Amino acid sequence: MRRSIATVSLSGMLREKLQAAAAARFDGVEIFENDLLQFPGSPRDVRRIAEDLGLSIDMFQPFRDFDGVTPAQLLRNLDRAERKFDVMQELGAPLILVCTNAQSDASGDVEILAEQMHQLAERAGRRGLRVGYEALAWAPQINRFGQAWQVVQRANHPHLGIVLDSFHTLALRDDPLPIAQIPGDKIFYVQLADAPWVKLDVLSHSRHYRCFPGQGEFEMAKFTAAVLDAGYTGPLSLEIFNDEFRAAPARATAADAMRSLLWLEEQMRDVASLKTGKSHGESRRVSLFDPPPPPVLRGWSFVEFAVDAGSAARLAQFLQAIGFRRIGKHRSKAVDLYGQGEVRVVLNLEEDSFARAYFEAHGVSACATALATDDALAALSRAEALGCTRVAGRVGQNELTIPAVRAPDGSLLYFFDVHAGGEHGFEADFIIDNAPSAATAFGEGARIDHLVQVLPTGQVEPWTLFYRAVLGLKPGSSTVMHDPYGIIRNRVMESSGREVRYALNVSERENTSTARTVSQFGGAGVQQIAISVRDLVAAMRRLKAQGASLLAVPGNYYDDLAAKYDLDPALLASMRELGIMYDRDADGEFFQAYTTPFDGRFFFSMIERCGNYQQYGIANAPVHLGALAQWRDAAA
Amino acid sequence: MRRSIATVSLSGMLREKLQAAAAARFDGVEIFENDLLQFPGSPRDVRRIAEDLGLSIDMFQPFRDFDGVTPAQLLRNLDRAERKFDVMQELGAPLILVCTNAQSDASGDVEILAEQMHQLAERAGRRGLRVGYEALAWAPQINRFGQAWQVVQRANHPHLGIVLDSFHTLALRDDPLPIAQIPGDKIFYVQLADAPWVKLDVLSHSRHYRCFPGQGEFEMAKFTAAVLDAGYTGPLSLEIFNDEFRAAPARATAADAMRSLLWLEEQMRDVASLKTGKSHGESRRVSLFDPPPPPVLRGWSFVEFAVDAGSAARLAQFLQAIGFRRIGKHRSKAVDLYGQGEVRVVLNLEEDSFARAYFEAHGVSACATALATDDALAALSRAEALGCTRVAGRVGQNELTIPAVRAPDGSLLYFFDVHAGGEHGFEADFIIDNAPSAATAFGEGARIDHLVQVLPTGQVEPWTLFYRAVLGLKPGSSTVMHDPYGIIRNRVMESSGREVRYALNVSERENTSTARTVSQFGGAGVQQIAISVRDLVAAMRRLKAQGASLLAVPGNYYDDLAAKYDLDPALLASMRELGIMYDRDADGEFFQAYTTPFDGRFFFSMIERCGNYQQYGIANAPVHLGALAQWRDAAA
Repeated sequence: MRRSIATVSLSGMLREKLQAAAAARFDGVEIFENDLLQFPGSPRDVRRIAEDLGLSIDMFQPFRDFDGVTPAQLLRNLDRAERKFDVMQELGAPLILVCTNAQSDASGDVEILAEQMHQLAERAGRRGLRVGYEALAWAPQINRFGQAWQVVQRANHPHLGIVLDSFHTLALRDDPLPIAQIPGDKIFYVQLADAPWVKLDVLSHSRHYRCFPGQGEFEMAKFTAAVLDAGYTGPLSLEIFNDEFRAAPARATAADAMRSLLWLEEQMRDVASLKTGKSHGESRRVSLFDPPPPPVLRGWSFVEFAVDAGSAARLAQFLQAIGFRRIGKHRSKAVDLYGQGEVRVVLNLEEDSFARAYFEAHGVSACATALATDDALAALSRAEALGCTRVAGRVGQNELTIPAVRAPDGSLLYFFDVHAGGEHGFEADFIIDNAPSAATAFGEGARIDHLVQVLPTGQVEPWTLFYRAVLGLKPGSSTVMHDPYGIIRNRVMESSGREVRYALNVSERENTSTARTVSQFGGAGVQQIAISVRDLVAAMRRLKAQGASLLAVPGNYYDDLAAKYDLDPALLASMRELGIMYDRDADGEFFQAYTTPFDGRFFFSMIERCGNYQQYGIANAPVHLGALAQWRDAAA
Repeated sequence: MRRSIATVSLSGMLREKLQAAAAARFDGVEIFENDLLQFPGSPRDVRRIAEDLGLSIDMFQPFRDFDGVTPAQLLRNLDRAERKFDVMQELGAPLILVCTNAQSDASGDVEILAEQMHQLAERAGRRGLRVGYEALAWAPQINRFGQAWQVVQRANHPHLGIVLDSFHTLALRDDPLPIAQIPGDKIFYVQLADAPWVKLDVLSHSRHYRCFPGQGEFEMAKFTAAVLDAGYTGPLSLEIFNDEFRAAPARATAADAMRSLLWLEEQMRDVASLKTGKSHGESRRVSLFDPPPPPVLRGWSFVEFAVDAGSAARLAQFLQAIGFRRIGKHRSKAVDLYGQGEVRVVLNLEEDSFARAYFEAHGVSACATALATDDALAALSRAEALGCTRVAGRVGQNELTIPAVRAPDGSLLYFFDVHAGGEHGFEADFIIDNAPSAATAFGEGARIDHLVQVLPTGQVEPWTLFYRAVLGLKPGSSTVMHDPYGIIRNRVMESSGREVRYALNVSERENTSTARTVSQFGGAGVQQIAISVRDLVAAMRRLKAQGASLLAVPGNYYDDLAAKYDLDPALLASMRELGIMYDRDADGEFFQAYTTPFDGRFFFSMIERCGNYQQYGIANAPVHLGALAQWRDAAA
């Protein structure tokens, strides 16, 4: 389908917005009026710039509150429309968007509205322009597409049609299915916006919280399916009012916008048409994006750290103190492999490498993670189809080529093919001189449960879409956590079988643990590697015995646990001794403990999930974040 | 009255919170449970720290959802309460706060609730502790103080009373007046929180947007008057959940907290008691803070810029290009005086001065502003009484001493006494060698209409309270403005006769005009000096003729004006030629134009208010901010 974007969705001045939309391969744009008013050239100049970039100008929205007015006001509004038609002809925009009147004194009489819209359409028609009528969710009278469609039907003018916007329909929890009954050629335009569910009036919701499809919580697929069922074949356009996007680099936002449409089109392929019974993917009416399916994920093969010689020695010591052993050395590169249970950590010291460049920019940090999957090449192809950049490293003779793409923060995401010898098949590239033993601190079967990433402000939406579209993960819970120095927002992304889980943390305030780590990394990064173990008390005893640096938990926390839960006193005593925290839900129990951070940057956590507990112990966040702050103060 | 603060209102770890509360002269604190859980010492240690700081621990709130439960659950809850009573006795906290049950399955039966609360009070009484029952605004059953009071009455236990929180009452728009009918000694505690009106569910409103009295929009005086009428004589305490405060320096927040209570107490003095008819100020029951009244303001005497020799020459050139003349030189200091109409600008080059220190820290910027007032010493006394720091400068022989206090950003606010020779009496300190002429660009009668300040994130609330409490200004409109690179929030503060008006701008995104200027200043600062002139077209013609650098406004803006308004074509042509923007409301018309920024830092605007237009032309903000961005790009 044709893909468009409203200029209001992107940050900056009009020229850079158009350039960004073109670079992301959009076909057209909607011009938001403020962008034109700010532009220091004529509408003709805008048209020329767009044409040079290969962009059509699909729609223009130059005023509000046109309809349902007094006859005298209507004449003034029609005069105003003629001036705006002049501008549209200069712009080369064929369609004007008229939203329903949001004033409290507007008429809701379908006859009057139809008559007034007919007059506007008649004038537009004389110039070869078309008028699209859209129900605003917060308009007092006409706020559902069904009502707007009544007006359009009654007006019955070839130059008048309806414009649909998923936000206005879904935010009111209006049923999109009747859209399928509207003749497709009377739908003049479709705008798509997703949003999280926030408990806010619909106008504020719309003005600040819209996001690209796949970044929010709306039923975008259901809405879009109804549009396709109607027989609509025009552009799918993104009109996103979002405070973050207004401030983010336009090119990155435009690339995300395109990824969101591609992802949504893919969802459509499997949805059956209500009319034909066939899936929309089989339909010949519109072409829908068709990438390789999301990969089947089996967990992480390894996490790779960028280090130099000095930090490598210290990090090795840190790892050994929590039970890792150096188990091998790369055949051709200055790369060491550490292992414990099923967990593999790679320390990359290679001088002329991506890792070194990453180290120079970010300091000691995880420069790459490797996901184990059934078909790494298909995963790579999907990622590339969805706009990811493929990265090729140097490969020595007879060494494995592990496909990789650049993640949104510039780190690498490897896809490791488990057919090449299970999750640890990459070890073929290493001289294994010290096999991992089961008798290490974490114990047998220890594996990475989840990674916690810290993100700069505004990066949650891009990462959500990246994980959702490229890896097929689903968003889980969204929570607010209280650091002593400000709030942290947390969003979880999980694969269907929970083999891979990420927690994305973001904080706008500069002194929280999350913000400090973002600042130390100079951007996003992995702050926590959570290892699930089979017996946490035993593991913590071993860690303590071998002198690991563990995060102390205040005694008051355990007094509160004792008041709150009927825990076995011996277990509680062990937990108090070992700094183990506790949570419980209807499905099971959860135990967690933390190391202190390495260089104040990142740390490991050890967790034990009992029963079917699938959460993350967020209730303990204030105590954990307080303990981190306390540790920082003591270390300073 | 006793003044208390909940530790949740302040940022950081418990020890720094207690230190900040003591430094701001609070009498007591409420301990928020997470603060205790994070604390790496015993409750006894907390008590000792508080005692050493002279703080009492007034209240503790250790759990939720106590009441309205099944008999079996009640037993568990009572057990839990006993554990918490242990903690309270260690803390030395005499009062436990029990909020009404927020679970959907909680009982709302007053008999059951009264019986359960009686049991809790009985157990508390055995230990000499008291129980305060508070209606949570989002509890499904008991969410109004009237309901909670019913339960307390029915329970009829000497150790059970009611706790009132202004947020829970006012956020639901519940009438506070019936509070006056509750016996004062059954009100065990009063928590005060103000908040802006946001269209959000009450729970989110409460958790993120509370603020100190005077920083929000709630009727705090009405609520507090009802509490006093009840005969309550206990502490007024601040329990503020605010995302900004969680991240702000605890000491500054605590000082603001105290200022807010002092200001609120002052408001109470003039409110008449419903019971006695006398004002609360005359009552002997409680003592209420009694500072000198807010000053009568007459506008600004001068704005003082911190400069060094090089920037002084450039700034002088900038000022002269827009019609200012150098009219004098300070008798004893390296300070030049510029004037035009009623506007005075001082350039301070003195080496060993506050201005020079300010210049070193902030670069060329307004380091001081002087307000003209009827009684400068009273204004100063009020400011000091409300916690401002008095600043004394060096004064030469026979020179005026102008009283000054430090504003929240560290700049100086002078109070200039108009009895010492009108608004410009300070010129006595200058050798006037070049009297101001009426024939300058701005024209006769030009005066400062308002100042626009840019503030770092989190600084709007402190400034709002500073202006409201210290100067007696009132908050006006709050608006969102759209910069091409992100949103800017704008709040207006005005004196009663609008002699003095400030617009406070804040932006969380780093590339907006506001955020860039904050970054250049290294903090808050004056970004715009708005001059009201009598004939803007004439003034702009003169400015253009003498080569002033004026901000260009795109032609598309005027095409839109022509479509929108029925403006005289000749006037519109002049506006287009001169870069004059336009706004209109029911009360009148507004014209505004801008200079380009000096060093990209600050600029002047020239405005003309017609009829009774009292707004600020915010509708033009996107075009102005776009023009600023365009100018920046061109200058780069």
